[in-house]
Amino acid sequence: MSHQLNKTSPTELQRKVLITDCADAKGLIAKITHVCFANELNIIKNTEFVDHAQGRFFMRAELEGHFDDERLLSELRAVLPAQNHMKLVDMCTKRIVIMVTKEAHCLGDILMKSYYGGLDVEIAAVVGNYDVLQPLTEKFDIPFHYVSHEGLNRQEHEQAMLKVIKPYDPDFVVLAKYMRVLTPEFVSAFADKIINIHHSFLPAFIGASPYKQAWDRGVKIIGATAHFVNNHLDEGPIIKQDVISVDHSYSAEELAHNGRDVEKSVLSKALQLVLNEQVVVYGNKTVVF
Amino acid sequence: MSHQLNKTSPTELQRKVLITDCADAKGLIAKITHVCFANELNIIKNTEFVDHAQGRFFMRAELEGHFDDERLLSELRAVLPAQNHMKLVDMCTKRIVIMVTKEAHCLGDILMKSYYGGLDVEIAAVVGNYDVLQPLTEKFDIPFHYVSHEGLNRQEHEQAMLKVIKPYDPDFVVLAKYMRVLTPEFVSAFADKIINIHHSFLPAFIGASPYKQAWDRGVKIIGATAHFVNNHLDEGPIIKQDVISVDHSYSAEELAHNGRDVEKSVLSKALQLVLNEQVVVYGNKTVVF
Amino acid sequence: MSHQLNKTSPTELQRKVLITDCADAKGLIAKITHVCFANELNIIKNTEFVDHAQGRFFMRAELEGHFDDERLLSELRAVLPAQNHMKLVDMCTKRIVIMVTKEAHCLGDILMKSYYGGLDVEIAAVVGNYDVLQPLTEKFDIPFHYVSHEGLNRQEHEQAMLKVIKPYDPDFVVLAKYMRVLTPEFVSAFADKIINIHHSFLPAFIGASPYKQAWDRGVKIIGATAHFVNNHLDEGPIIKQDVISVDHSYSAEELAHNGRDVEKSVLSKALQLVLNEQVVVYGNKTVVF
Amino acid sequence: MSHQLNKTSPTELQRKVLITDCADAKGLIAKITHVCFANELNIIKNTEFVDHAQGRFFMRAELEGHFDDERLLSELRAVLPAQNHMKLVDMCTKRIVIMVTKEAHCLGDILMKSYYGGLDVEIAAVVGNYDVLQPLTEKFDIPFHYVSHEGLNRQEHEQAMLKVIKPYDPDFVVLAKYMRVLTPEFVSAFADKIINIHHSFLPAFIGASPYKQAWDRGVKIIGATAHFVNNHLDEGPIIKQDVISVDHSYSAEELAHNGRDVEKSVLSKALQLVLNEQVVVYGNKTVVF
Repeated sequence: MSHQLNKTSPTELQRKVLITDCADAKGLIAKITHVCFANELNIIKNTEFVDHAQGRFFMRAELEGHFDDERLLSELRAVLPAQNHMKLVDMCTKRIVIMVTKEAHCLGDILMKSYYGGLDVEIAAVVGNYDVLQPLTEKFDIPFHYVSHEGLNRQEHEQAMLKVIKPYDPDFVVLAKYMRVLTPEFVSAFADKIINIHHSFLPAFIGASPYKQAWDRGVKIIGATAHFVNNHLDEGPIIKQDVISVDHSYSAEELAHNGRDVEKSVLSKALQLVLNEQVVVYGNKTVVF
Repeated sequence: MSHQLNKTSPTELQRKVLITDCADAKGLIAKITHVCFANELNIIKNTEFVDHAQGRFFMRAELEGHFDDERLLSELRAVLPAQNHMKLVDMCTKRIVIMVTKEAHCLGDILMKSYYGGLDVEIAAVVGNYDVLQPLTEKFDIPFHYVSHEGLNRQEHEQAMLKVIKPYDPDFVVLAKYMRVLTPEFVSAFADKIINIHHSFLPAFIGASPYKQAWDRGVKIIGATAHFVNNHLDEGPIIKQDVISVDHSYSAEELAHNGRDVEKSVLSKALQLVLNEQVVVYGNKTVVF
Repeated sequence: MSHQLNKTSPTELQRKVLITDCADAKGLIAKITHVCFANELNIIKNTEFVDHAQGRFFMRAELEGHFDDERLLSELRAVLPAQNHMKLVDMCTKRIVIMVTKEAHCLGDILMKSYYGGLDVEIAAVVGNYDVLQPLTEKFDIPFHYVSHEGLNRQEHEQAMLKVIKPYDPDFVVLAKYMRVLTPEFVSAFADKIINIHHSFLPAFIGASPYKQAWDRGVKIIGATAHFVNNHLDEGPIIKQDVISVDHSYSAEELAHNGRDVEKSVLSKALQLVLNEQVVVYGNKTVVF
Repeated sequence: MSHQLNKTSPTELQRKVLITDCADAKGLIAKITHVCFANELNIIKNTEFVDHAQGRFFMRAELEGHFDDERLLSELRAVLPAQNHMKLVDMCTKRIVIMVTKEAHCLGDILMKSYYGGLDVEIAAVVGNYDVLQPLTEKFDIPFHYVSHEGLNRQEHEQAMLKVIKPYDPDFVVLAKYMRVLTPEFVSAFADKIINIHHSFLPAFIGASPYKQAWDRGVKIIGATAHFVNNHLDEGPIIKQDVISVDHSYSAEELAHNGRDVEKSVLSKALQLVLNEQVVVYGNKTVVF
């Protein structure tokens, strides 16, 4: 659940998140929590998940105390299966770059939430292939980079984007209705770090014009999907989905108009989950703690 | 909205539903309601919808009074465009035949609701290609026909089904988790009268094992779709859809288990809409008044 | 449903909304639509509702054509019961004044939607009893009036507010988390024109600190309610409500944090319904067309 | 989440649930899971919750292995704070008695789900203060006891009920729309074992005729609440709530009619959570694992 508020300790105690992802084995929780206890770290919140079908163990622990990262990780490695993924991350404000095209609603929601504290994030910059959203971005004193795709092939355009984005060294890149397909080269530059909002309830209506597709099909519910981007269009690991009810009286344009609220809400919630280190990607799926 | 309760008049007044479906034109509501008024029929409830994209007019009026059907329809025809679909139906209890395979939840919900008055319908018979649900059906004193498909080709089996169903002359045939694909011949025997429940949020996960498909894809929401059956698998006009939230911790079996509640609820609600004459099919879509 | 997009005619045709609210009688739809037809007005969209318990008739018609308001209303009056409420309004952009205290999320959503066209409204001004939201308001080039309540009694403060608001002559006053109770005098200055967002699912948790109340009670769902303001705290006619699921793990602060998304969404949707002339108040209830 | 399916071990291994509820302290998870590990018990699923406001620790572990209950509990007691609540329960089918009045929908749903395996429960008996539901109950070969309240005062009637229920020694008593208020004496006979369905979204509309109250208030959403029964009417710990959207067009009767589906669904889901040992009561709240 994405409802954490206060990630800083009231005293000089530090707070970190330990994510473990390894083959399932007996006694893993006991061993991991024992190491934490022996390191005098308090477990503020703990969640586990075992995928029994694949024999895989996942655990997310919010720890509080004085950290000796090297020692902690080394002692944990000693009790875990040889093959393991482990991650110890500070509960700190993350830095993102937002990519946009022309639509304002998703960008607007993230800007506004960030402004009033509804989303704990540092928006380093917004990058657009149109300049439509420059005035909105700059209202919030955030740099906007206009990188037009006109006259450039896809590789050239992406290189230009990368040149702008890379120096910000973002923790995550957020596609807030960025309406161009990205190449594997671009995606691999930010592996498991690109979050996209797709304006349909995936896997229904993959590809272009999902609201038009939905109208043609006469569905009674429309939705939106936030997912990590991989190299297959609209097929990356899903983080969050939500829907709204519609009926025969909606035109395709009205579906799109009403869908915007779901899009922005789903993207914001997915982003919060990711920023809180609540999402673990494995294969083409996510564990959302 | 499917929330009508009492469809009988308190006095000897009759109640009927008039459905109009024709090309849009100026003054249609005025003309139709004037004819009703001139026939001393009271409009209890009236709903219109104009599909401006296709220039098509739809109207559903619940009328109360003393009906001279011939005169009413003839006067209405005189004021409508030449090409029109018009239907005047009694608000009476409809008769259905339910087709099943092995799963009890959808059948069980319809049986139970019919028993205690939650659904105003006469279940003439249940027909199954297995006999698993015979004891349940007979608890409610409803005839069960076991028509095994074993040893028969598809045509022979459907002929055997038709032979059983036809004599009941059902207003609608309800596929309550009937797990075999129907041929165009069977479908055309009950054109626009067969209602199916598909265990996914169509058009996602068309075809077999939708819960397994959903698990493989890692979706965060699953759903069910009730639709009229046409000759393309899972592609008929959608009547009703609903969804529930799920997460990574659900196995494919647990998705199926939890999906059953949505399936039965969506099918029952769609059936109620159809029984209330609230659904108009046009092209591959529905208007649900 | 609040999903209208385009309220201007493509040609020089005008578009207006006719709202009728009167005692029920036979032939009302026929008579009203006949007058419209005789005035060569096309009915783009029509909705009726009869409250059979109270014998009351409501109708909302979107009309298109060349209007002679005097003649139309006079001819309508001739066919309606003597006691009737009738309203013919232009489908034009409405002007609002927003009252706030310190919380940004509801104001922010309205500002942002207005900015990018998600809400067709003219925000004439924002008035706050704190100046916290002045910078945010002014980003969008909208005047902010800081009218502190300090050192003033309630009457004096409201007089000061009125003095600021009145000259804008707003169609509606929106309380976007304005955290002070209004007197009957203030309310009567904008009868049926003040829209409030209450941060609970009314009538649960009336009054102060609803999230704390919800936490104490251990509810599993929280909500928000947009309503017109009358002289009884949190008891005016409800326009829109929505909810989200929560669980034992939410602190009272986390309930409040997560509730903000519902509050802003419910207020925006209620506002859109009101701006579209889709809401009719009668007694302490609303008809939402 | 109430989505467990299979609670029996494929081999001769046993499966039990360990529920811990005590003051929070450092290292609790490590100590408890270490004891489990030392007893060669595998943790199939583990969930913890710390109420930081009240300094209270809750943990639910599904354990698999060969159990020496005495030894396990004794070793656990040795590592827990002196004051603790601990419970080790078999994951087996529970026995319930259902109390009813006249409405069939909640009883019907439990009977049907139990019949087809949608709810793993043994319905020992149904007890009614009317005999209306006797035929339905007996269709499923379950004993029905008709204990009329006529001519008896409340104490006498409850004594008669107790006399019938007690011999079944139920794990839980389910009030499936039992429409009489219970005395503290009756409630204390089944402390924390009585589950009620209230036909409103508590704490809105406490007491009689909630749908009439909801209609009078003009709410846009109605709901249902399943809760444990304590000595204050409609104020026991809430287990599950759900809602549906309604509008002005619903009469009070239509609200009730449509509310039935939510009532039955909420009660069934709450019951499943309780049967799965996923619900811990503390104070006037529940932790739902």
